[in-house]
Amino acid sequence: MSKQSIKNVTPFLVLLAVVIGALFVAPGASFDPNSVIDEATKAPKYTYNSGDIAWMLVSCAFVFLMTPALAFFYGGMVARKNVLSTMIKSTVAAGIVSVLWVVVQFSLCFGKSIGGFIGDPRTFFMFKNVMNGEPWSLATTIPLPLFSFFQLMFAIITPGLVVGAVAERIRFSSYSLFIVLFAVLVYSPLAHMAWHPDGYMFKMGVLDFAGGTVVHISAGMAALAGAIVLKRRRNVIAGGPIPPANIPYVLIGTGLLWFGWFGFNAGSAVGSGSLAVYAFATTNTAAAAAGLSWMFLDVFRGKKPSVLGFCIGAVVGLVAITPAAGFVGVPQALFIGFIAAIVSNVVAEFLKSHTKLDDPLDVFACHGLGGMTGMLLTGVFGDKNVNSLVVEGQFLIQLKGMLISATYSFVVAFIIFKLINLILPLRVTSEEEDEGLDASQHDENYVQGTLLVKTESGLQEKANY
Amino acid sequence: MSKQSIKNVTPFLVLLAVVIGALFVAPGASFDPNSVIDEATKAPKYTYNSGDIAWMLVSCAFVFLMTPALAFFYGGMVARKNVLSTMIKSTVAAGIVSVLWVVVQFSLCFGKSIGGFIGDPRTFFMFKNVMNGEPWSLATTIPLPLFSFFQLMFAIITPGLVVGAVAERIRFSSYSLFIVLFAVLVYSPLAHMAWHPDGYMFKMGVLDFAGGTVVHISAGMAALAGAIVLKRRRNVIAGGPIPPANIPYVLIGTGLLWFGWFGFNAGSAVGSGSLAVYAFATTNTAAAAAGLSWMFLDVFRGKKPSVLGFCIGAVVGLVAITPAAGFVGVPQALFIGFIAAIVSNVVAEFLKSHTKLDDPLDVFACHGLGGMTGMLLTGVFGDKNVNSLVVEGQFLIQLKGMLISATYSFVVAFIIFKLINLILPLRVTSEEEDEGLDASQHDENYVQGTLLVKTESGLQEKANY
Amino acid sequence: MSKQSIKNVTPFLVLLAVVIGALFVAPGASFDPNSVIDEATKAPKYTYNSGDIAWMLVSCAFVFLMTPALAFFYGGMVARKNVLSTMIKSTVAAGIVSVLWVVVQFSLCFGKSIGGFIGDPRTFFMFKNVMNGEPWSLATTIPLPLFSFFQLMFAIITPGLVVGAVAERIRFSSYSLFIVLFAVLVYSPLAHMAWHPDGYMFKMGVLDFAGGTVVHISAGMAALAGAIVLKRRRNVIAGGPIPPANIPYVLIGTGLLWFGWFGFNAGSAVGSGSLAVYAFATTNTAAAAAGLSWMFLDVFRGKKPSVLGFCIGAVVGLVAITPAAGFVGVPQALFIGFIAAIVSNVVAEFLKSHTKLDDPLDVFACHGLGGMTGMLLTGVFGDKNVNSLVVEGQFLIQLKGMLISATYSFVVAFIIFKLINLILPLRVTSEEEDEGLDASQHDENYVQGTLLVKTESGLQEKANY
Repeated sequence: MSKQSIKNVTPFLVLLAVVIGALFVAPGASFDPNSVIDEATKAPKYTYNSGDIAWMLVSCAFVFLMTPALAFFYGGMVARKNVLSTMIKSTVAAGIVSVLWVVVQFSLCFGKSIGGFIGDPRTFFMFKNVMNGEPWSLATTIPLPLFSFFQLMFAIITPGLVVGAVAERIRFSSYSLFIVLFAVLVYSPLAHMAWHPDGYMFKMGVLDFAGGTVVHISAGMAALAGAIVLKRRRNVIAGGPIPPANIPYVLIGTGLLWFGWFGFNAGSAVGSGSLAVYAFATTNTAAAAAGLSWMFLDVFRGKKPSVLGFCIGAVVGLVAITPAAGFVGVPQALFIGFIAAIVSNVVAEFLKSHTKLDDPLDVFACHGLGGMTGMLLTGVFGDKNVNSLVVEGQFLIQLKGMLISATYSFVVAFIIFKLINLILPLRVTSEEEDEGLDASQHDENYVQGTLLVKTESGLQEKANY
Repeated sequence: MSKQSIKNVTPFLVLLAVVIGALFVAPGASFDPNSVIDEATKAPKYTYNSGDIAWMLVSCAFVFLMTPALAFFYGGMVARKNVLSTMIKSTVAAGIVSVLWVVVQFSLCFGKSIGGFIGDPRTFFMFKNVMNGEPWSLATTIPLPLFSFFQLMFAIITPGLVVGAVAERIRFSSYSLFIVLFAVLVYSPLAHMAWHPDGYMFKMGVLDFAGGTVVHISAGMAALAGAIVLKRRRNVIAGGPIPPANIPYVLIGTGLLWFGWFGFNAGSAVGSGSLAVYAFATTNTAAAAAGLSWMFLDVFRGKKPSVLGFCIGAVVGLVAITPAAGFVGVPQALFIGFIAAIVSNVVAEFLKSHTKLDDPLDVFACHGLGGMTGMLLTGVFGDKNVNSLVVEGQFLIQLKGMLISATYSFVVAFIIFKLINLILPLRVTSEEEDEGLDASQHDENYVQGTLLVKTESGLQEKANY
Repeated sequence: MSKQSIKNVTPFLVLLAVVIGALFVAPGASFDPNSVIDEATKAPKYTYNSGDIAWMLVSCAFVFLMTPALAFFYGGMVARKNVLSTMIKSTVAAGIVSVLWVVVQFSLCFGKSIGGFIGDPRTFFMFKNVMNGEPWSLATTIPLPLFSFFQLMFAIITPGLVVGAVAERIRFSSYSLFIVLFAVLVYSPLAHMAWHPDGYMFKMGVLDFAGGTVVHISAGMAALAGAIVLKRRRNVIAGGPIPPANIPYVLIGTGLLWFGWFGFNAGSAVGSGSLAVYAFATTNTAAAAAGLSWMFLDVFRGKKPSVLGFCIGAVVGLVAITPAAGFVGVPQALFIGFIAAIVSNVVAEFLKSHTKLDDPLDVFACHGLGGMTGMLLTGVFGDKNVNSLVVEGQFLIQLKGMLISATYSFVVAFIIFKLINLILPLRVTSEEEDEGLDASQHDENYVQGTLLVKTESGLQEKANY
């Protein structure tokens, strides 16, 4: 069997093994909240709340939608020949991570703590003990599987975010493998440390309402690692312009991300009450301020106000408010959005013009730094009146949490990318890159036709776009 | 008055007659759940639950969204000259079926049973007795009209699914007529038989959680009938390649379908509790497994992993889990998605390469067979612990239900297509087909411009794309 | 400092001032519904309902989504060179109005009444007294900030609607300024008059369930004013055809608008009960009837049934049912949708062919007249059994409310447009208009490439499209 054949049959056979293994696991009845009696009150210990369940079902769906939304946000910004290959790399995480989650990842994130660092893979292996399990201790009014699937949606989108830094040159199979390794080795420990009651950062008092560390810093640092390992695109080295393929895609992506983020942040209240409302309010406010901030800063510096600017700014605002959403006030959210967009805008431009780092869609600047800004400002603006979890000296705790997450995710992601490069070539060949990854990796084209652009010497074919 | 004139004025006059008729029906106050006292308990017989209502309102909206989502899923896969005509045929069902539903179709589906086969058209004619009606016996915590509108959304999308099999050659007016006849003669009896407590299949114990028979088998078999009656497209006979017009449309369509399907399946629990959570979990799991399964099978056979493959696979998984969603476990859902994608993938390819059946978007293979796989596997994996409705010997009951639905829908749909062909020509003329249905049927173009494609002999116009 | 420099730095500095000001406002704890005891019952005066909160959080998100949806609905209909500039003008309202709302607009709309005309800007200045405020008197089961953010989403989309009338020729900065002035001078007084318990129209008994006056009549009349002040597009004067850039964008826009409108109308019940169900039902029914009505009327007059026709018709139906949604019956909604589409269709065509008014996307005919039709028919079909707020002589009250809103919004919007024209040029230069606003205003292109269209004399470049 040739090496190519092995590569071709392996994914299918692995999936086959998983689904056959799954058949040996009993489905299990839903947990009955009346089955556990609280000794003190003699009343059932748990009560499901149909309003909370409704909001959390919706939030799950909203956060799910962010993945195709992200595919459009990213896909519209790359070159015309790489639209599909960019989109599918985010989207396929919905397939890979959903399966992995049921098999072992939920357990790694939220299973019995092993030293505060990771969950025991056996606790919920193959989803046993989930359907019939007692509610999560921090979400006692909804069934455990609902908490699990809400968390799944976060695990899906996080590797999807990294795509923007490695787009236009990474191989699809390498990226698929990255998703698996990142999910297990980066996401799961971070989620466990930040959100499990026995987790290291949780116990340290680090506040991360909806994923500033787990989602955005981790994705942003992995993006940095990926961009370093992969090096620059041939187009960028050649210095040619790479006009974004389809800006309306970016706009609908932004609209759906903003929409889904209401589930991401307000859903992180794991219930349908005042805290969810608070998080909804701060989320929208930060996004709006950041969209304007990015656009107005561009204008301030003599550029024209652009659709891309408003969209990217708004997403940075959403990133930055993520860790803070349930801890700060609405006026403070205005400030967080405003300042985060400035930081990301300035750094993204600096990196492009003063370094050789090629992070095509600014994932490090937008998600990494956006997440860091949000984490730190949670320490500055977090208010006990909003959320009693806020303590004195929160800023230093946040700083520590930020440094731990950033360091951990950068180092491990870097090793993962290097490792994959040993097994499979990480990057496509130069010919494949020039042809475009859509055609070379997927045998598909986003739209038909040869691109003709009017130039001073008449109509010219633009193969490179 | 010429025949053409009659055809032109008829739809408007029919609609006019309907809306004038509607004015004679009193609006009716909402049903007061406190108005009916249970004799045994002396308490009100019904209690509305605001959480259940919230989730069901959302589910209605989610399922509604699946229709434009389907328009994009299908529209992106056809030739560039037929994008709009494909999209509008699914979308217009939202117009036609919504009106029909209020007038008589809800009554045909859920009115007083006539022999277990169909509802009495008088029970809810013109929506009387609905707003002020007692809650549906299987959904007692939400108002009857909410149950009705949730069901409406299923009735809308079902004829929309058939479009994929008849696309690129059926006339718009013929298809509009098909929607009406299919709704009355195929959908309504099937919905009644499967979901009305006095329905023939319901009483037989056939389990169909969210529409494996009513929606997918019926659409899949009607698709088969349509493809047979309409015969092959001229493009296909000529053997030319027909590249999909816009694959990102397929991807956003898939994303929105997957999103909407959470309402479709988890909404079919008609409440915001554990069963909804169960159905949500199995739905996402099957979709993920099926998307990977289709893509990995392609790779296994030496093809490249494609965006289309992942998307179509995911939709097949969603189809297959539909009847099973509230009856099987999460690990079993992995298996159902995995196997359904293989069945549909293999059969779709077989039909394309070994038969003269021209089902452009594989509706029979994906929805028909996907629905059948799901129905049968509900019999295999349905578990009493998950849902007490599951009985011994469920497999044989499922098999019977599947055969009844498949046979009934194929035969009646076949007759409908033949009948329409007698009244109106079913198919566009050869000239119209070559020009494209967007221009010839709707005087519209999806995008402007003449398509030029680089070939060995230079840039060539591609009229046929 | 040059005049240009001042224009460039001003938006950024204003935003900076706002966010710094915001830092001086305390976040404030959420209001505790148990903190206010009803003297009569000795029980807490307010009880939050988690189902109501769930539905309202969702409704907020749904209405938010209507703004990007509108961007696609409009953006797909304009010329290829103006897609982005049209989209961003609607979308940026999500930025501008969200910030303005937190600062002062919520207060202007819902603050302590000043003479029934406008709210006191101090009541909720910088969002103080909102998070910790008592629930809104007409929405006592949800937190005040949730009511506020639901209302915000309406305030965002209203100026967004006006874009369709001024598209393809208004400058971006002028439009941004228009958004601010419209929000403060038109939207806020109307919202206050119509929906504040002490508002002038509210006390008069004018019924406007979800924004027939505040949203649609106000936007439609401002659109008329804008089109008059801006005059005709150069393309229109030249008489050339301007084919819509991308009809699938219109279709997905329509789908998402229809979807979001469920939150708009059913959410306006501010709770998850029978009234929300009623509004959901009438909303879907009117949209369906109107989509068919517009399309069938086109066919009746010898045109082909078009995707655009169905989409525009459906939106008109949604507009017309907006004021009526919670007051009329489902059969009556059929009639309202049907008739509104006819009115808008006929008037839109008349204006295009018999006047020099250039309202590119028929905002006046669709939203202005659609809203008026709905307001008046609320007076005709409003039924006490559906909603006890309906009184004898409602029609005359509706007529008065309609005239007040229409006159007020037209006059003030007209003055605003004239005023802006004094400060900034309202309209782009002729060169910019010919080049397209995407390139000239934003330095962006919706898609790459030069458009070639097959004509009798071969392939021709079409710069004007």
